[in-house]
Amino acid sequence: MTFLNEDRLFPVETSVRDIARALYSDVHDLPIISPHGHTDPRWFAENKPFADPAQLLVTPDHYLFRMLHSQGIPLEALGVPRVDGGPIEQDPRKIWRLFADNYYLFRGTPSRIWVDHALQDVFGVTERLSPKTADEVYDRISECLTQNAYRPRALFEKFNIEAISTTESAIDDLRWHDMIRASGWGGKVVTAYRPDAVIDPEFDGFADNVETLGALTGEDTTTWAGYLAAHRNRRAFFKRYGATSSDHGHPTARTEDLPADVAATLFDKALSGTCSADEADVFRGHMLTEMARMSLDDGLVLQIHPGSFRNHSDVIMGRFGRDKGYDIPTRTDYVHALKPLLDAVGQEPDLTIIVFTLDETSIPRELAPLAGVYPALKLGPPWWFHDSAEGMRRFRETATETAGFYNTVGFNDDTRAFCSIPARHDVARRIDCGFLATLIATGRLDADEAPEIAHDLAYGLAKQAYKF
Amino acid sequence: MTFLNEDRLFPVETSVRDIARALYSDVHDLPIISPHGHTDPRWFAENKPFADPAQLLVTPDHYLFRMLHSQGIPLEALGVPRVDGGPIEQDPRKIWRLFADNYYLFRGTPSRIWVDHALQDVFGVTERLSPKTADEVYDRISECLTQNAYRPRALFEKFNIEAISTTESAIDDLRWHDMIRASGWGGKVVTAYRPDAVIDPEFDGFADNVETLGALTGEDTTTWAGYLAAHRNRRAFFKRYGATSSDHGHPTARTEDLPADVAATLFDKALSGTCSADEADVFRGHMLTEMARMSLDDGLVLQIHPGSFRNHSDVIMGRFGRDKGYDIPTRTDYVHALKPLLDAVGQEPDLTIIVFTLDETSIPRELAPLAGVYPALKLGPPWWFHDSAEGMRRFRETATETAGFYNTVGFNDDTRAFCSIPARHDVARRIDCGFLATLIATGRLDADEAPEIAHDLAYGLAKQAYKF
Amino acid sequence: MTFLNEDRLFPVETSVRDIARALYSDVHDLPIISPHGHTDPRWFAENKPFADPAQLLVTPDHYLFRMLHSQGIPLEALGVPRVDGGPIEQDPRKIWRLFADNYYLFRGTPSRIWVDHALQDVFGVTERLSPKTADEVYDRISECLTQNAYRPRALFEKFNIEAISTTESAIDDLRWHDMIRASGWGGKVVTAYRPDAVIDPEFDGFADNVETLGALTGEDTTTWAGYLAAHRNRRAFFKRYGATSSDHGHPTARTEDLPADVAATLFDKALSGTCSADEADVFRGHMLTEMARMSLDDGLVLQIHPGSFRNHSDVIMGRFGRDKGYDIPTRTDYVHALKPLLDAVGQEPDLTIIVFTLDETSIPRELAPLAGVYPALKLGPPWWFHDSAEGMRRFRETATETAGFYNTVGFNDDTRAFCSIPARHDVARRIDCGFLATLIATGRLDADEAPEIAHDLAYGLAKQAYKF
Repeated sequence: MTFLNEDRLFPVETSVRDIARALYSDVHDLPIISPHGHTDPRWFAENKPFADPAQLLVTPDHYLFRMLHSQGIPLEALGVPRVDGGPIEQDPRKIWRLFADNYYLFRGTPSRIWVDHALQDVFGVTERLSPKTADEVYDRISECLTQNAYRPRALFEKFNIEAISTTESAIDDLRWHDMIRASGWGGKVVTAYRPDAVIDPEFDGFADNVETLGALTGEDTTTWAGYLAAHRNRRAFFKRYGATSSDHGHPTARTEDLPADVAATLFDKALSGTCSADEADVFRGHMLTEMARMSLDDGLVLQIHPGSFRNHSDVIMGRFGRDKGYDIPTRTDYVHALKPLLDAVGQEPDLTIIVFTLDETSIPRELAPLAGVYPALKLGPPWWFHDSAEGMRRFRETATETAGFYNTVGFNDDTRAFCSIPARHDVARRIDCGFLATLIATGRLDADEAPEIAHDLAYGLAKQAYKF
Repeated sequence: MTFLNEDRLFPVETSVRDIARALYSDVHDLPIISPHGHTDPRWFAENKPFADPAQLLVTPDHYLFRMLHSQGIPLEALGVPRVDGGPIEQDPRKIWRLFADNYYLFRGTPSRIWVDHALQDVFGVTERLSPKTADEVYDRISECLTQNAYRPRALFEKFNIEAISTTESAIDDLRWHDMIRASGWGGKVVTAYRPDAVIDPEFDGFADNVETLGALTGEDTTTWAGYLAAHRNRRAFFKRYGATSSDHGHPTARTEDLPADVAATLFDKALSGTCSADEADVFRGHMLTEMARMSLDDGLVLQIHPGSFRNHSDVIMGRFGRDKGYDIPTRTDYVHALKPLLDAVGQEPDLTIIVFTLDETSIPRELAPLAGVYPALKLGPPWWFHDSAEGMRRFRETATETAGFYNTVGFNDDTRAFCSIPARHDVARRIDCGFLATLIATGRLDADEAPEIAHDLAYGLAKQAYKF
Repeated sequence: MTFLNEDRLFPVETSVRDIARALYSDVHDLPIISPHGHTDPRWFAENKPFADPAQLLVTPDHYLFRMLHSQGIPLEALGVPRVDGGPIEQDPRKIWRLFADNYYLFRGTPSRIWVDHALQDVFGVTERLSPKTADEVYDRISECLTQNAYRPRALFEKFNIEAISTTESAIDDLRWHDMIRASGWGGKVVTAYRPDAVIDPEFDGFADNVETLGALTGEDTTTWAGYLAAHRNRRAFFKRYGATSSDHGHPTARTEDLPADVAATLFDKALSGTCSADEADVFRGHMLTEMARMSLDDGLVLQIHPGSFRNHSDVIMGRFGRDKGYDIPTRTDYVHALKPLLDAVGQEPDLTIIVFTLDETSIPRELAPLAGVYPALKLGPPWWFHDSAEGMRRFRETATETAGFYNTVGFNDDTRAFCSIPARHDVARRIDCGFLATLIATGRLDADEAPEIAHDLAYGLAKQAYKF
C-alpha cells in the first residue's frame, strides 16, 4: 500500500505524462551512481544498526532542522549537540514527535518528498506523517532498525547503489575505507580527495594541517615543492581507496595561474598566517590550477563547488559550530573567475573539470556557454538548495539549449541523509523524463531518441564523467 | 454581465484547473487584509466622493501613466502636475479618452487585469475599455461616483476590507487617522511608521525633519540618546493609531550594528550634513538595527523594502518631481547586507523582520535560504514590478522549496490605487490556488492539505505576521 | 514529406495549442524583416553558388562548431582556418560526416531546430540527419547548390525576405552594397553603421582606423571636432546604402555624457594609445551619447549590444583568431550604466534606442522597467544564446508585464547562417503565438486582440522600429 502519487513530478497534460511515464519506466530501477556525497564510511565499515528514527532521519539532516529552527524551534530541542556540551533533548521519541507536529512546514519542499519516499519505500509506512501517526511511524521505523535488513550494507544493496563516493579530508587516514575493503564486502564505496583543510589559508589550523600532510606523506611541506609533492602523494593514496575525483568548496570560483616563485612566496605567507583575505583567495584559486595539472597526470576529476557563505550566523556558529543549516548562497562570477584555469588547462580533452553553482543566474548566462565550448569543462547538476523538482526543471530549461545534454554529468545527491538517496535520484529521473517528454511533445526531440538520453541522464553520464 | 474570464489565471489543463477553481471558491471572498499600502487616510476621514474617473483611476497610478508616457505621451496630457505649475490637461474626459485610445498598450500587463476587474466588479461595466466605449464607461463611472455607495468608506466595506494599513512619515501628525477614529466609523484603518525622512541623511531636509521630530516628541534630538528616545516616543504615538509595523525604503539592504559612540558621531555628521554617501548608507543601515531593537520592546514588525533607484530621470524629476514612475529596480545583495542585523537580532523568536525584494534573482539564491533558517526573518510577497501573475508564480516556484509557505507572509497590495485593491488580492489568490493545484496534480501535496494553505496565503499569514 | 512536427513549440494542452495554431496560421508566411544580422553582402552582390554543404552550413556557424569542439573535436577537423595557416580538414564531405556523427550532441538545442528546418524546408530532406543519412543528405544539398534556385538571390526570394540588414564597419567601402544596387536586382539589402573599430580605443589598430575614417570622409580626424564631423559624414554615406541604424557592441552598457573639452582630451589620449582600460570604457560610453545626438539629426536607430566577454580563451584566440564561439555573456548593469545617455536624450520621442541583453536577469529587474517608462528606449529581442525557444518564452514572460508588447521591437535573427533565417523567424513566431494563446487561455487577453499582436510581433514592430 502506498500513499505517494505514482505519477508524481511528471507533466500534468495527459499525453505528455504518458510519454514521461514510459521513459521513466525504463530508467526508474537503474542502479544508483552516487559520485559525490557525504555519507559516513564508518556506517559501511562497522555495519552497526542505526540508532533510532530521530538519529537516522532528523538530527543529521540540515534541510530538516533548518526549517524547524526557522519557525522558532530551538536546535537543542532537535538534539543538535552544543559546542559547550550544554543540555539538549536526548529522547528520540520526543524529537520525532516535534518533527511530526511540524511536518506541515515542509509542504511544497523537496524534504517532504524525500521523507515521504523514505517512509513509504524504505520503511513501508502507509500513511503520511502527522501528529496523529507520529508514534506509529516511530515504532515502525524503530522495529525495522532492529532487523539486519536495515543495517547500512543491507540498505546499500536494497537501494541498488552500484557505486557511492564519500568525501574525506586530505589528512583523513581513510581507516573506515580500509576497513570496508578488508571486510570482503562487495559494495563499492570510494573516497574523494577534499583538500580544503590544507589548501585554504583561512581554514582552522591550516599550518598544522599542512604539517600533518607532510607527516602522512613523508614530504617536506614547509617548502612549496614539498607541499606539491605531498598533494601528489596523497592523491595517489586516495586513489588506492577508489578515489576518482577531488572536490573543492571555495567561497568564490576564483582561479589563478601564478608563476612558481609567486606561488611559493604566497605559500610561505599562508603557512606563517600572514595572508590577507585577498591573498588567501588568490592562493586557493591558484591551487585549483595546480590540482588540475595533477589531474592531467593522475586522472582525478576536478570538482569545484563555490559560492556558499558558510556559517552565516555568528550566534549559531558560537553555540553549535559549523554546518548547522546557516550556509547561504551568494552571487558568483564564473566568466572572469575561471579564465586563468581555463587558459591553463581548458583545452585538454582528457581532463574533466565539473563546476557546480548555487547561483542559478549563472547557468544560462555563464556556465552553459562556458561548458558548451571548453573541452575540459562540464556542468554539475543542480546542487544543494536547487536539487529540487523546480530547481532541476530550471536547470534543464536554462542549461540544455546552450550546453546540450552531453556537457552535463547526470545527477549526484550530495547528501549525508542515507535514506534520502533513492528518493533524490528518483526525483531527478522523474524530472528529466518529464523534460524529455516535453521536448518530444513540442517537436524538439524525436521519440526514438529519448530513451537513450533518459538512460544517460539517470546512469550513463555520471558513470562516464566520474570514471566509475 | 461580465467580460472577464471567470477561470482567469488558473492552470490551463482541465484537471488542474478544476482543483484550482475549487480551492479558489473557498477563499475568493475572504476579507482583505492589506497590511502594507499607500491609500490616503484622508479619503476615509473625510469620506468625500472621488472627483472623476481620471482622478480616481488614471492620474495617480504610476503603473498606468508610466506606460502611456513610454510611448511618447507627455505626462502633462495625463494631468500629472508640473513642479513649475505649468499648464497640464484639466479635462478629465480628455484624459480618460487618451487612456482609452491607448488601452491596447496594457495588453499582457497586470494593469490590464486590475483595470478590467475594477471596471467590471466595482463599476458594473460590461464591455472592455476601448476608444469606442470610452465615453460610455466614463459616464458610467461618473454616475457611480455621485452615489453614496461609491464614497471611500462604502467602497472600503464593499471591498470587504477587514483591515488596511496606510503609511505615514514619522513626522506626520496623523490628523486623518485621528479624524477616522473620532468619527466612530468602524472601518479598521491603521498607520505604519515610515521614518525615512528622519533616518536617511540624504533625505530632503533631514536636519529640519529631525528637529521636527524633537518638537513633536519633546525629546532633544540634537543628541544621539535623545534622537533614539524620540523614535521610541513616536513609535508609541503611531501605535496609538493602530500601527503594527515600521517600514523602511532604503536604496540598499545594508545593515550595520555600530558601537554606540560610533553611531553617535555619525549621527552628528548626519545632522551637520557632512556625511559622505557611504556614511549615509552606514547610518541608514545602523538605524535598521536600532529599529529592530525597539521592535523587541514595542512589538512593531520591521519591514525592509530595498533596491529601488528612485527618480532615475533627472529631466522628469526636475519637471514633475518624485514618484513619477521612474523608480527602477537594481541588483541587490542580501547575504552580506543583512548579516549585522541578523547577528544582532536574527535569533529572536518574537521579532518579525519582513524583507522585500525587487531583484528576483535573490529569492532562490539568498532570501529563501535566509528566511528558511533565521527565526526572525520572513520573506515579503512579490513587490511592485513583480506583483503580477508571472511574478507571483515565479515567487512561489523559487521561494517555496527552500522557505516553505510559513516563512512567507501572505499578500500585500502596496498600492495607492484604491479600486485596484480587490483585483490585486484576487490575482494573488488565483495564482496561489493555481500553484497549490499544480503541487497536488504533480503529487507534491495531498488534496486534504491544500484548503488550509490556501486560506493561510489569502488571509491567515498576513493577519498573523502583521499582528492584525 | 516532412519529418518536423507541424505543431512544434506550441503549448501542449490541446485547447491552448489550437489557439496558438490558429494565430500562427495567420502569420507564418508573412515576409521576413531582418533588421539586424551578419549575412555577407557579397553573396547577394556576386550571386555565385554556395560552395558545398559544409561551407554553407557547418564551418561558418559558431553555434555548431562550438558544441562539437566542447566534446573534444579539434576545430581543425571542422575546417576552421588557423591563424598560422596550418593544416586543416579540406574535404567537405569528411567535415559533414563528422557533423552528422555528432549530430546527437544538438538534441534539445535550437541549432537542432534550425538545421532540421533548413534541411527539410530549404533542401527537401525527408529524414533526420544521422551517421546513416549523412552521405545522402550531403549529396542532396550538393545537388541543390548546383541549381540556380539555390543561389543567394533566389534563396533570398524563396525565404520571402522583405528586407535584410547586414552590418559593416564604419570604414568599410560598402562595395558589395554598391554592386547590389548597381545590379538592378530588387532585393532589399541594406547596411548598418558599426563603428566599433573607430570608437573603441582598445580595438586593433584604432588610431589607424580613425585615420582611415578621415581619409574616407575628407575630415581632419586628428581633432575632436573633425572626428565627430567624420562620423556624421560617414553615417550619411551609410544611409545612402539604406542604413537605418547604427550598432554598438561594447563590453559593458556604460554610457557617459562628458563636457566637450573632457571628451576632446580623452579622444587625444585614445589616439595616442595612452587610455587606461577605464578611460577607454568612458570614451566608448561617451560616444554612445554622441551617436544618439547624431541620431536626433539623421534618424538612425541606435542599437546597443553589450555584455559579451569576447574571445575568452587565449589559446583559441592565438590559434584561430576572433569569433570562434568563445564569447561568453557576463553580468551586466543597465540602471546606472544607461543613466547618462537617458538623461541626455531619453525623453526624445523621435529617437529610438534599442538595448539588447545577454544577462536575462536584467530583463524583469532593469530593462523592462526602463523601456516601460523612457520614451526613447525599446527592448531588443532575446539575443544570441537566448534566441531559442526557452529564451524567447522567458523573454515574453519577464518583459511583457512591465514593458508590454509595444516597447519591444519584434524579432531579429542576428545571424551569418543564411539558411537558418527562415527557421529562426519561424521559432519566434511559434513561441510568440504560443505565448499569446496562453494569455487568452488564462483570461489575460481577449481572443479578438491577439491576431493584431501576433502580426505586430512577427512583422509590424520590426518594420516600424527600424524604419523599414
